Amino acid sequence: MDLKEVTKDSKEIFKGRILRLRVDTVELPDGSQGTREIVEHNGAVAIIALDDEGRLKMVRQYRKAAEMIMLEIPAGTLETGEDPLDCARRELEEETGLKARHWEKILSYYSAPGFCNEVLHLYLARDLYPGEKNPDEDEFLELVDITLEQAYHMIFQGQICDGKSIIGIQYAYYRMERT
Amino acid sequence: MDLKEVTKDSKEIFKGRILRLRVDTVELPDGSQGTREIVEHNGAVAIIALDDEGRLKMVRQYRKAAEMIMLEIPAGTLETGEDPLDCARRELEEETGLKARHWEKILSYYSAPGFCNEVLHLYLARDLYPGEKNPDEDEFLELVDITLEQAYHMIFQGQICDGKSIIGIQYAYYRMERT
Repeated sequence: MDLKEVTKDSKEIFKGRILRLRVDTVELPDGSQGTREIVEHNGAVAIIALDDEGRLKMVRQYRKAAEMIMLEIPAGTLETGEDPLDCARRELEEETGLKARHWEKILSYYSAPGFCNEVLHLYLARDLYPGEKNPDEDEFLELVDITLEQAYHMIFQGQICDGKSIIGIQYAYYRMERT
Repeated sequence: MDLKEVTKDSKEIFKGRILRLRVDTVELPDGSQGTREIVEHNGAVAIIALDDEGRLKMVRQYRKAAEMIMLEIPAGTLETGEDPLDCARRELEEETGLKARHWEKILSYYSAPGFCNEVLHLYLARDLYPGEKNPDEDEFLELVDITLEQAYHMIFQGQICDGKSIIGIQYAYYRMERT
């Protein structure tokens, strides 16, 4: 069966600062029509930054969508046309004041492919050294250092509860356990 | 520092079938104002369903937002007021034709808390037995059976690339490795 959905019509509903919304009319595999509500996003990066003692650099910030303070790995949104690794370097320094000599791509994934095209690029940063801290003007952050093992257990206690941090911490914790 | 952002104004932009969009004007921690573009979603469930041979039940489907066929674990959107476990039982049967005698909650997480309130509830289902297959009328799926180990490696080859599947597979693979 050809699973593809062919766009018959596309209507832009909203164009904002970080996201756009459109509604597509699609032809489904059986020839009938359906609609798809789709959020467009530039994509983002997130960074597992580990210091020489194996401690993970995390940030606490208020997440308006969730109406709660979250403990997350450093992350940020891609500017149009920006290279993801350049963005990761920029965001790590802006949010934590740190640079890294060693960068490694872990993976890229869709955060919510049922309705959103956001791709998140996840990096491992090691061999950290001081840069300049310079958060965006509408970003208010607190830095938290934590061991990978602590972070891993906090996932299952619900204290770390965002997708990118969970994926990155699972990856790094298991990799550390094996080496 | 109090990180909370206080809502000063909220404007509904769109109310659709599976999502709503609003723009909030907020007072930031330093007293200045900002805007937050927020997608509201009912939340969803996803299921790591393992058969008695340790094979994972996955589904292939076209994801319009990503414009690609994705290989994912079974999942679906919560109806208003629906209990997540009831939803997980329903979605597993609708998408795979299987029921499970053993259900276990793994965790709940925010898929994209920077702009969306979607919470995804992840379950482990074991001791599977046949039910009735009955996908939604606008869902076209193909079932795929795969070992956990295959699935795990496909994450890092980019062949499994959605957040919920990556979190669930990493969890189940490491748990299996340790037992």
